Amino acid sequence: MAEAPVTAPGPGQLLLKTLYLEFSPAQKSWMENVAPYRAPVSIGDVMPGNAAAVVVESGDSGFAPGDLVTGPFGWQEFPTVPASEAVGVPDGVPAASALSVLGVSGKTAYGGLINVGKPRAGDTVLVSGAAGAVGAIVGQIAKIAGCRVIGIAGGPDKCLWLTETVGYDEAIDYRADDFKARLKALCPNGVDIFFDNVGGEILNLALARLARGARVVICGGVARLNMDARDPSKMIEGPRNYFNVVFTGATIQGFLVYDFQDQFPDIVRQLTAWLRTGQLVSHEDIRTGFENAPATLRGIFEGANQGKQMLKVAEAN
Amino acid sequence: MAEAPVTAPGPGQLLLKTLYLEFSPAQKSWMENVAPYRAPVSIGDVMPGNAAAVVVESGDSGFAPGDLVTGPFGWQEFPTVPASEAVGVPDGVPAASALSVLGVSGKTAYGGLINVGKPRAGDTVLVSGAAGAVGAIVGQIAKIAGCRVIGIAGGPDKCLWLTETVGYDEAIDYRADDFKARLKALCPNGVDIFFDNVGGEILNLALARLARGARVVICGGVARLNMDARDPSKMIEGPRNYFNVVFTGATIQGFLVYDFQDQFPDIVRQLTAWLRTGQLVSHEDIRTGFENAPATLRGIFEGANQGKQMLKVAEAN
Repeated sequence: MAEAPVTAPGPGQLLLKTLYLEFSPAQKSWMENVAPYRAPVSIGDVMPGNAAAVVVESGDSGFAPGDLVTGPFGWQEFPTVPASEAVGVPDGVPAASALSVLGVSGKTAYGGLINVGKPRAGDTVLVSGAAGAVGAIVGQIAKIAGCRVIGIAGGPDKCLWLTETVGYDEAIDYRADDFKARLKALCPNGVDIFFDNVGGEILNLALARLARGARVVICGGVARLNMDARDPSKMIEGPRNYFNVVFTGATIQGFLVYDFQDQFPDIVRQLTAWLRTGQLVSHEDIRTGFENAPATLRGIFEGANQGKQMLKVAEAN
Repeated sequence: MAEAPVTAPGPGQLLLKTLYLEFSPAQKSWMENVAPYRAPVSIGDVMPGNAAAVVVESGDSGFAPGDLVTGPFGWQEFPTVPASEAVGVPDGVPAASALSVLGVSGKTAYGGLINVGKPRAGDTVLVSGAAGAVGAIVGQIAKIAGCRVIGIAGGPDKCLWLTETVGYDEAIDYRADDFKARLKALCPNGVDIFFDNVGGEILNLALARLARGARVVICGGVARLNMDARDPSKMIEGPRNYFNVVFTGATIQGFLVYDFQDQFPDIVRQLTAWLRTGQLVSHEDIRTGFENAPATLRGIFEGANQGKQMLKVAEAN
């Protein structure tokens, strides 16, 4: 934690007051410098991360004081940033919802489910890490697409939350003794789409339950944990049952949200529309206090959150 | 080995004289009853397998004595079969070539490479088990599609055969000390299509070398060996580096040749045309003597064959 003077914005810059920070498993790999798609983080750098903020002072004609914005502003209370990094929050959408559903989590959920998973009405969609930021959105989009949606989460509280609040048709507690039996019973015709946020043994079990022509969507989120941090090309363990793809003609496909970068405007337009009609609800798990940022990041690796983990740093006014 | 009287064909039946038997790794899984797509084989049954034969006596108006046919006639010298199981050998194509290139091996190579792998001119195509029945055909079709084709095989003789005879651009000996280094050196921009006939450690290494948007084609052939025979849903080991699909947006897709059943007429027409122009050559490894069938089947699991393993049972005339 370091203090530094607030910098007045130059031309094309914005001085912001941070309202919310968001947290995602990818941040761990950024610190470990095992993410091949971004520059390394060094000791002393501002911790990278996305935030929602309000414009305090603007050096750019596109923004005025009071405007709500999101962007990769890092863990700072009053960042001065290039205006090109800021995206305006659409009218009628709360700043925290924009940070989650219109941000990386929502784009990941949409791109992974729609572009990679290609859901069809009536498909059985199974989601691991269903109570996490991405999982909670995937389940809702799959319902909009007319699918039957089954979530996997840890513990009865999260499972109840998935079916009662988020709108999953069914939820399975992977810590329960009857996990395998329930997975089998709830997918009598197999799984058409498995959206995997977790990897490991849950992936093995899901691979054993694929329907013909199934799509297995490997989300680059929590599964990163399966990597050997010293050499990202060396994974600790592979999915034992992957060979069932031969008998089912199934596809295992990985993605990073940046794969869909050129479709972001369309994806955000669709997500915004669903937020406005209430078909899609932003579920946030909000802690408070800027000093709690490191502990909050650690918490998502312990499965502490239900929905998108955020930290409220300040009020807009 | 059992002797039984030759049965005269009834209406709609054919009495055949077997000329060639073909052998494939799938036959092991049929005996172990771990192949979910076909009925089990029992002790005392005729060993199933495809054969090329000549019609001796015909009870069907579509066939006459002397016609060459292929089909799933099993390990028999003079089978009597329903005419519906027999497929005529196209004019100008040798019976053994029809059994290999127009049979399961050729359809598997074509369907896996073209339908699943979707090759584009200029792609780098890597093939494991390249000197096997399927691999030798995959390499040739990939060349026809304008790809750069690299084969993996065991030992310098097979590697030389791949580049000198089959037409692979490069071949890598997986038993050589410099295997990993050569794989890396020959694929400086990564692998666009990995056609996997083997699984195991070669799959791990190939997954570490994928190009963006790569397609990994898991052929249901030799990789079956990776299965636990007592429970096909339990695999012995998964591909450790599968998680690279996230960073490359790659696809791992499995298939069985029967997935393309409705396209067989078109596939056979194309393969026949290529055989006739000489763009595609049938490479056969032919042993002799009906009594050697069991030993010949065992041989393909020891990598004894170069190209399609066959057994010559009799002359046509």
